[in-house]
Amino acid sequence: MSTYIAPLRDMTFILNEIAGLEEICALPGNEECSVELVESILDEASKFATGVLDPINRGGDTTGSVCKDGVVTTAPGFKDAYKLFCETGWNAMPFSPEFGGQGLPAAVTMAVNEMWKSANMAFALCPMLTGGAIEAIAHHASDELKQKYLPKMVEGTWTGTMNLTEPNAGSDLAAISTKAKAVGDGTYLVTGTKIFITWGENDCAENIVHLVLARLPDAPPGLKGISLFLVPKFLVNDDGSLGARNDLICASIEHKLGIHGSPTAVMSYGEKEGAIGYLIGEENKGVGYMFTMMNHARVNVGLEGVGIAERAYQHALWYARERVQGKIVGDTGSDKKTILHHPDVRRLLMDVKSRTEAMRTLAYYAAAQIDKAHAGDAAAQARIDLLTPVVKGWSTEQGVELSSTALQVFGGVGFVEETGAAQYYRDSRITTIYEGTTAIQANDLVGRKLAREKVPGAAMKALLAEMAATAQSLEGQAALAGIAGNLKSGIAALTKAADWILATYEADPQAVHAGSVPFLKLTGIVVGGWLMAKSAAVAAQRLADGSDDVYYTAKLATADFFAAHQLPFAAAYAAEVTGGAASALGLEEKLF
Amino acid sequence: MSTYIAPLRDMTFILNEIAGLEEICALPGNEECSVELVESILDEASKFATGVLDPINRGGDTTGSVCKDGVVTTAPGFKDAYKLFCETGWNAMPFSPEFGGQGLPAAVTMAVNEMWKSANMAFALCPMLTGGAIEAIAHHASDELKQKYLPKMVEGTWTGTMNLTEPNAGSDLAAISTKAKAVGDGTYLVTGTKIFITWGENDCAENIVHLVLARLPDAPPGLKGISLFLVPKFLVNDDGSLGARNDLICASIEHKLGIHGSPTAVMSYGEKEGAIGYLIGEENKGVGYMFTMMNHARVNVGLEGVGIAERAYQHALWYARERVQGKIVGDTGSDKKTILHHPDVRRLLMDVKSRTEAMRTLAYYAAAQIDKAHAGDAAAQARIDLLTPVVKGWSTEQGVELSSTALQVFGGVGFVEETGAAQYYRDSRITTIYEGTTAIQANDLVGRKLAREKVPGAAMKALLAEMAATAQSLEGQAALAGIAGNLKSGIAALTKAADWILATYEADPQAVHAGSVPFLKLTGIVVGGWLMAKSAAVAAQRLADGSDDVYYTAKLATADFFAAHQLPFAAAYAAEVTGGAASALGLEEKLF
Repeated sequence: MSTYIAPLRDMTFILNEIAGLEEICALPGNEECSVELVESILDEASKFATGVLDPINRGGDTTGSVCKDGVVTTAPGFKDAYKLFCETGWNAMPFSPEFGGQGLPAAVTMAVNEMWKSANMAFALCPMLTGGAIEAIAHHASDELKQKYLPKMVEGTWTGTMNLTEPNAGSDLAAISTKAKAVGDGTYLVTGTKIFITWGENDCAENIVHLVLARLPDAPPGLKGISLFLVPKFLVNDDGSLGARNDLICASIEHKLGIHGSPTAVMSYGEKEGAIGYLIGEENKGVGYMFTMMNHARVNVGLEGVGIAERAYQHALWYARERVQGKIVGDTGSDKKTILHHPDVRRLLMDVKSRTEAMRTLAYYAAAQIDKAHAGDAAAQARIDLLTPVVKGWSTEQGVELSSTALQVFGGVGFVEETGAAQYYRDSRITTIYEGTTAIQANDLVGRKLAREKVPGAAMKALLAEMAATAQSLEGQAALAGIAGNLKSGIAALTKAADWILATYEADPQAVHAGSVPFLKLTGIVVGGWLMAKSAAVAAQRLADGSDDVYYTAKLATADFFAAHQLPFAAAYAAEVTGGAASALGLEEKLF
Repeated sequence: MSTYIAPLRDMTFILNEIAGLEEICALPGNEECSVELVESILDEASKFATGVLDPINRGGDTTGSVCKDGVVTTAPGFKDAYKLFCETGWNAMPFSPEFGGQGLPAAVTMAVNEMWKSANMAFALCPMLTGGAIEAIAHHASDELKQKYLPKMVEGTWTGTMNLTEPNAGSDLAAISTKAKAVGDGTYLVTGTKIFITWGENDCAENIVHLVLARLPDAPPGLKGISLFLVPKFLVNDDGSLGARNDLICASIEHKLGIHGSPTAVMSYGEKEGAIGYLIGEENKGVGYMFTMMNHARVNVGLEGVGIAERAYQHALWYARERVQGKIVGDTGSDKKTILHHPDVRRLLMDVKSRTEAMRTLAYYAAAQIDKAHAGDAAAQARIDLLTPVVKGWSTEQGVELSSTALQVFGGVGFVEETGAAQYYRDSRITTIYEGTTAIQANDLVGRKLAREKVPGAAMKALLAEMAATAQSLEGQAALAGIAGNLKSGIAALTKAADWILATYEADPQAVHAGSVPFLKLTGIVVGGWLMAKSAAVAAQRLADGSDDVYYTAKLATADFFAAHQLPFAAAYAAEVTGGAASALGLEEKLF
């Protein structure tokens, strides 16, 4: 097995040159942040990822979490690692200082979180879910609930969960049937069964704070009749100490394809008298509140695509540098060479490398928009709204593909579980499903973020104009002309598809939705290609200025590969969008 | 779980209308074959697949094969199913009547084999490997060996294996180090370790006939110093009865990502005195003989891509017809509908359906070329030589993608193992690796089958001309004009890429190999699109002639989808081939 080493050089390059870290550090509230501080944080985080999380990742897969009589035992080393994770302050990093957090910008958190996801995606789900729950409580709960729950959750002693899904309510939250009724003392009794609850039960936390969507009696039907409740595993006394066990239990955990280290629980609420819960915000507004968690979680799940692709890349590269096999075509020398010299192995690795870097750049860029939007920048808010489904949908679809590509580098041993490549392939497969499938992201993109935007298409058009300006500016430079050409073609394809969607949506939304996933992939490729082109321009400038840093040489070559091997697919996806709806929708149901 | 139902209507359509079954039945040696007979064979096979093989497929995955002290116990039901498989004559079906086979054409065998692969891919590997061994023995061994081994192998009482791979000799057979030395009585003693031996040990067969590549003392180095030996698990007495146990043992079986029902053995030969083996054919010509098995196996592994995609499709379709979830965009009705009505679910299913049908058509078409070549048709031989790597490489790459697409239809439950979708995803992943990785197929395609052909490019040019004629003939027909347009663009892209390869190969073979896999995918899409277009033309004609068979309506819609959603990617792959070599090869090794 290879050891995970955080790609610190690429991370800091993207943060500094593309995400605009200096600018972000200058925003109100970020005064304590600086480029130097961030560098030392990333350095420390990389040590934690390499030294603590990476070594227990295999055992997380092979042993996994185990549930017996409602008690979950996490995989070997997970409990200790989590304790250390909290003690060293990593859990608190992204959150408001008001509740004990360090309040670091989203862009910095993004880079740090990538390391957790690369080193141990199953483990990283625990703080991710806690983070989502913290966001929802911080934005929508009463001060009393905040004071009582957030400090422990920020520190990580208590973890958090999202309880949305039920057996008959998956993508369709409107079908939720879990019930809540007011007791009269300000509390509620919750009854129902929730499934697919990530880290829903575990032995790492002293308490688990479940956020549960449920219906009050006489609530309106559908999405507008769902409220959000805070339902703790242990009730919390007024002095903050833990009280009685609440009436909720982990009925079982799922036997899954991957992320075995992450316990995915079936949670049963109120098998006896009802689980005591506390209303968050107002009645019947739960779905809106939950989206506070969802948007946070979506970008973070997109980041899982980046993290797992990076880890799979490092693992495959390690093997490609070790394994000697076969004669290299066109090689006239007689000495045996590693498979890294085979043209197709190089292509496979360049494919993973270039797409991973493009996804990383998009994720950090998106995080920078979150920071700017947080400081009141409306254009940044529009940009992150537009890009959230792309970060989630495109990066995860790629993570699945690239973990498969990385496995291919191993040949036969890739199919043997002990090699470890199969784990990344299996782990990654959930990412295009949870927190909204790729289709749900894509429908959000073509609907709310494009055709049903306040000014339809405004955010996309602003992005297209900015990208076109970049392409224009690169055309004159010899080293970048190839990239500029491919980027221009990509932008043209995206423009054509976006225009078609804007012209079609009102009259025929089904036709648009039939091509929404190809449109999402198209957007990802073009935006990824744009950000790689911007990176290439910086690298070319540094080299022209006399730098001998080979990182810039590599970045140029990697951007070149992305432009030549990914951007040509933009036209194909655009053709699917504009010319594929009739054939996608035409066949009668019975003829499938 | 859904039940596998063989797609008999599509199978017979392709056999009759595209593969030319009637013509094949008229070839010398096929006198006993007829369209009616084939129909009844397919019908019987479908019952066996549905009734016997499909029900034990899940247990093959969950229990798998187990090895203890060199003894392999196959998964529940496998032993009985195999016995029945042989007793009912399915194992003997493809082989020469001289040794007890039924001598059915390759095209028919292909359709029947698809059913085994759909219903139970792990099981189907056993007769596939036996079949490869039978081919090699029948073509290259002495009459004595043939008479002694083939009847039992054809009947299936004895199974066969291919022993190529060693820890240091995977894709590179030249590195084989297993040794053989002549004893003086015409036999040899074989010593060495072979890995990844499919069905290398099992409890289904009374004897296992291993074909083993090994080196004789003083053999020349490399590929030209490797001989092929028949090494039986039990020695066979002159009267055909089983004698002493040979000095070979299954050291262990692999813990794999998928196909758990298929025991993948580490075989140890000659731990004591040496395993007794019999030379097949002449010394040092083993690699050539092994290719008799390999070509047979490659087409059959390509067929695994078809089979697993079909099975995954049926499973996902079953779920899409059952599962009610969410409001359908643009639907003004109030009743809840199944997810099959969601535009993106339709697109996902059409994607799997159309690509599976295209792959099936290619596989049966390729089999028809085998039958014709067998009867002396040189053009058919050139065509099957050209298409073998495409059938193997393209169909398996698609099988992996499509089993993932099918899993996506399930949403969250797709990630839960009990649903069964994950098994197809895991099982399919080996197919792009064994019997030569996709890169090895692609290098064969651009090298021996194109640029290093006797007349370079001749076979591809003949195919391109034939495809262009089809596109031309469809252009005038309104129902087919869309398909024709996309097909023409695809052919243009393939022509451009093939011309570039022919112009580049001699001076820069590395550049060609850097794009060989995209070229293979490009070829698959265009040839698949061509065959779907031919199918659409037949369907359109039947409908114009007044047929009310909805199968033709569905075929037209499916071909239309393939043309609109797959053929546009041809240009992108061509761009990778012609414009992507420099960036694939440019980065220095140390900068990865």
